[in-house]
Amino acid sequence: VSRLPSYASHQVGVAGFVLNEETEEVLMIQDKHRLVRWKFPGGLSNPGEDIQDTAMREVKEETGLQTEFKSILAFRQQHNHPGAFGCSDIYVVCRLAPLTFDLQICPAELEDARWMRVADIAASREGHSPLTLRMSKLVLRGLRKGFDRVDIAIDELPSVYNNTYKLFHRPLAS
Amino acid sequence: VSRLPSYASHQVGVAGFVLNEETEEVLMIQDKHRLVRWKFPGGLSNPGEDIQDTAMREVKEETGLQTEFKSILAFRQQHNHPGAFGCSDIYVVCRLAPLTFDLQICPAELEDARWMRVADIAASREGHSPLTLRMSKLVLRGLRKGFDRVDIAIDELPSVYNNTYKLFHRPLAS
Repeated sequence: VSRLPSYASHQVGVAGFVLNEETEEVLMIQDKHRLVRWKFPGGLSNPGEDIQDTAMREVKEETGLQTEFKSILAFRQQHNHPGAFGCSDIYVVCRLAPLTFDLQICPAELEDARWMRVADIAASREGHSPLTLRMSKLVLRGLRKGFDRVDIAIDELPSVYNNTYKLFHRPLAS
Repeated sequence: VSRLPSYASHQVGVAGFVLNEETEEVLMIQDKHRLVRWKFPGGLSNPGEDIQDTAMREVKEETGLQTEFKSILAFRQQHNHPGAFGCSDIYVVCRLAPLTFDLQICPAELEDARWMRVADIAASREGHSPLTLRMSKLVLRGLRKGFDRVDIAIDELPSVYNNTYKLFHRPLAS
């Protein structure tokens, strides 16, 4: 227990792994200002915004797609993040299911958006970041063996302060 | 993608679920200033400190025990946390293995510390928080069916900025 006053030390960024389970394709975007690689849509949480809401909002803003939150696939902690003015960064990858399919990309932010086969990304040897590769392998495992193998599930528990809070952990079912 | 400058919006708190696998006991503490319930040792991350290091440091400071990081069991996001001056809070529960067993509690911070049977906590109907109950049930499942069912594992990936970063997700092994 620290006796120092508490303070905000981390920004929270969220990405959406939007998976079409029928075609086994994932929605990838190309950023207008950082063209290097295809990546997952996403961005920073607004104050007071839940992780899963950030994921769905950013996908909607960037690509026009409405989605449904399914699970958390992974999260990363990184220190001295250059985009975070020296503070630390927590980056969460959410698995989302698309509810609409008509891509309408935000021209101010995106150069392009398209569906790509998850298996193609997972099998690629270059052109994708280690995180993109890892997430694609994880989702491919989910598609083949069931998402109960890969998901970090969400649950809501009563809080002493607020009404409830969201807790993420492996499912308790046997 | 947000076009606003990024900023720290979250504090990160970490708890240690210190599990003696042989006796199936967990280390619980009683806070001197907030006596209400037994809880897991833990506290806030220092600037630039990794989640797993916070867990081990806090357990050492509060109870004298040296531990080894095993996995992340769960994490919570909570907004308007009263201990966080209106910012949001991410609270992570780490599973730790004890390396030493001589309890030396910090008299400035703790009233008491003791080992409790995980099964007793999981079966209790009052006196423990919903989070304590849930984590105990999760660990009990790990003890009975294997921790591969409950663990969120840690891995290290290359970063474009720093050398590496820690990524937490379900194991990729089949």
